[in-house]
Amino acid sequence: MAGTTALLTDHYELTMLSAALADGTASRRCVFEAFARKLPEGRRYGVVGGTRRVVDAITDFRFGPEEVAHLRATGVVDETTLSWLADYRFGGDVDGYAEGELYFPGSPVLTVRGTFADAVVLETVVLSILNHDSAIVSAAARMAGAANGRPIIEMGGRRTHERAAVSAARAAYLAGFGTTSNLEAGRSWSIPTSGTCAHAFTLLHDSEKEAFEAQVAALGVGTTLLVDTYDITAGIETAVAVAGPELGAVRIDSGDVGVLARQAREQLDALGATGTRIVVSGDLDEYAIAALRAEPVDAYGVGTSVVTGSGRPTAGMVYKLVEVEGRPVAKRSSHKESRGGRKLALRRHKPTGTALEEVVYPAEGPAPEAGEHDRPLQIPLIRGGQVVEDLPTLEDSRNRVRQGLVSLPWEGLKLSAGEPAIPTVHLTREQS
Amino acid sequence: MAGTTALLTDHYELTMLSAALADGTASRRCVFEAFARKLPEGRRYGVVGGTRRVVDAITDFRFGPEEVAHLRATGVVDETTLSWLADYRFGGDVDGYAEGELYFPGSPVLTVRGTFADAVVLETVVLSILNHDSAIVSAAARMAGAANGRPIIEMGGRRTHERAAVSAARAAYLAGFGTTSNLEAGRSWSIPTSGTCAHAFTLLHDSEKEAFEAQVAALGVGTTLLVDTYDITAGIETAVAVAGPELGAVRIDSGDVGVLARQAREQLDALGATGTRIVVSGDLDEYAIAALRAEPVDAYGVGTSVVTGSGRPTAGMVYKLVEVEGRPVAKRSSHKESRGGRKLALRRHKPTGTALEEVVYPAEGPAPEAGEHDRPLQIPLIRGGQVVEDLPTLEDSRNRVRQGLVSLPWEGLKLSAGEPAIPTVHLTREQS
Repeated sequence: MAGTTALLTDHYELTMLSAALADGTASRRCVFEAFARKLPEGRRYGVVGGTRRVVDAITDFRFGPEEVAHLRATGVVDETTLSWLADYRFGGDVDGYAEGELYFPGSPVLTVRGTFADAVVLETVVLSILNHDSAIVSAAARMAGAANGRPIIEMGGRRTHERAAVSAARAAYLAGFGTTSNLEAGRSWSIPTSGTCAHAFTLLHDSEKEAFEAQVAALGVGTTLLVDTYDITAGIETAVAVAGPELGAVRIDSGDVGVLARQAREQLDALGATGTRIVVSGDLDEYAIAALRAEPVDAYGVGTSVVTGSGRPTAGMVYKLVEVEGRPVAKRSSHKESRGGRKLALRRHKPTGTALEEVVYPAEGPAPEAGEHDRPLQIPLIRGGQVVEDLPTLEDSRNRVRQGLVSLPWEGLKLSAGEPAIPTVHLTREQS
Repeated sequence: MAGTTALLTDHYELTMLSAALADGTASRRCVFEAFARKLPEGRRYGVVGGTRRVVDAITDFRFGPEEVAHLRATGVVDETTLSWLADYRFGGDVDGYAEGELYFPGSPVLTVRGTFADAVVLETVVLSILNHDSAIVSAAARMAGAANGRPIIEMGGRRTHERAAVSAARAAYLAGFGTTSNLEAGRSWSIPTSGTCAHAFTLLHDSEKEAFEAQVAALGVGTTLLVDTYDITAGIETAVAVAGPELGAVRIDSGDVGVLARQAREQLDALGATGTRIVVSGDLDEYAIAALRAEPVDAYGVGTSVVTGSGRPTAGMVYKLVEVEGRPVAKRSSHKESRGGRKLALRRHKPTGTALEEVVYPAEGPAPEAGEHDRPLQIPLIRGGQVVEDLPTLEDSRNRVRQGLVSLPWEGLKLSAGEPAIPTVHLTREQS
């Protein structure tokens, strides 16, 4: 079945299903929650990424004849389970934080309700998407914050798995990056793509001048010329000689880009190319971007650091069974304890709009009082197996990231390692 | 075009192509090389992963009507370029290190020969695969070494992008892991999969005993029972009471697993379950595995650390134009310098088989003298666009990893941060 997500699943989910079908527990009504016990080390906030992709993966989760044949041939499960899988359509309900929402330790980022059988098989694909996309959005949001309004181009596809690259480009765009180099991300998610030429194009030609002439002839004087293949000063001189002072931009991809940007700005201005922008790239991360804030840089190209989550490549979310037939359940042998029972959350804010705390409370029983500046955090995503209409668009989620970052206390935006920007308050049934 | 890899490409590759088609340089005969300037920080060796996937991605690189329509609609390139792309079939030659081969800084891991147009468009997909898969194989090989023959189960799919998870499972298997939890990896690459039950299965039931009974009924007494949902000692007692002393294994997923494994072994032996194995999991990496070497552990389950490359999620390889119409070319403005000209490599060994050095030398001109213990490192992969017959299988590559690790000087296998295990010697035309 082309495009099915059904085998993006761990073996044990199907053996659990098989055992639960056999003893009758498979039909028990369950609630699973996806959440992070803690933020990645040193991070002050997380940003939820992938919600839309999770919804699509759940509705595409079908075992076609090929999947069933594979599971039969490898003996993963018995015939009863195979026929159950062949008929599988998720028929339950999913609620979650809107994509682009901030999250903190314990935030109920996604809640899946259905029979045990319905919900248990979704664990791996749900977590893969949330953990990857949230890691990238969270890192990219730090970079977008550090860039302080200057555009960032995502160009890291070559440093990560070829399909993860497409989702990473989407996640970076969600966080506020302006464009991506990745063409498949352009097709799949209608994200603007950009790019001009690499060093190879200059090296292909007999001289830098010929390369620049060819590029300007093909892409116009508004293009970005890469000037650091040989000597940057000579490169800029040639660039303006070829394209004229209307040249769109020059790119510097190596060396001490802050110093080089200042020199390039002076040289461009002296050549009359006062409107020519300066793009820098080459191993930039949020710290390097912040350090360039005072330099005459007009745009950043970011690769490795964004697609690998800037040292935190996974969000570490887990998918836990918290309720069976209305009864809270939780593992309790060690430090990895969870809180049983379905939970909801609201975020309290000061009248100024600054976030104060994340309140996580039991879904059963009275909700805590919400002031006019407080906001419930879960939205319905799937009802009875059907995707809810008018889910937030990618642009909606982009705005949500921006609003979320504005709402953080100022310490929350510091790039240094720290505690979560706001505390998570867990209310029990009695307290809420 | 289902399954095409053609848009897993950076925008600038197609604008370069367009400019080169316009000025006639697109047909120049070129050589591109993929290599790592350095190993990831602190690593003593790298292992090449993804070669087979690269070969498949190159032969699947076709622009169908949908891809062309997308590029036309978004105005990425002109009509001349679109018709060239519609006819694109890679027609050149590819050579490279066999999958599973060790590599070091400067090793010519992959060499692509063809026209500029033929070869430039492959940059992103080639690098995405090599960088991801090599990062995972390299990390997984450290874990397999630390496990010292004890089996490891890859179970990290939930911590990485859902499609990267499949390739990561393959990479871990290549490095010596025994099985994976990922069912799609089982289907795509015929890797053995395994899994039994999670904590959710125990929590679903009214008691641990009922859960164990259901699992044993469905999966037999040879199954692995997860004993740390409530109290481990009680869990083990229940497990043996339910399954009898023939119980296959118990799994402990949390806490101080070394201490817990010792206690579990004593308890199992006292209960007569002397053949019941102990599987441990929960945030294990190569250091944790090494620290457990003296403990009575029979198998490890490894998740996050392997799929994220244990702190080094990308191999950092680059794809550089090194030769145009037989003439060496190289960027030369900064520290990111490359060596021009197509290169070959051989690895010198002591008579004992221990590796001595990586010799990288120009393909043109005489090859350096090779002793009977030396070995050329590139093999042909694609000739005139056709995949070479009898490429190494996944099992061949698995053996190659094993042999490679055995050939390293002993310091090379240390887990601590260090220099590359053997030096790379670059010969110039005069020296070779």
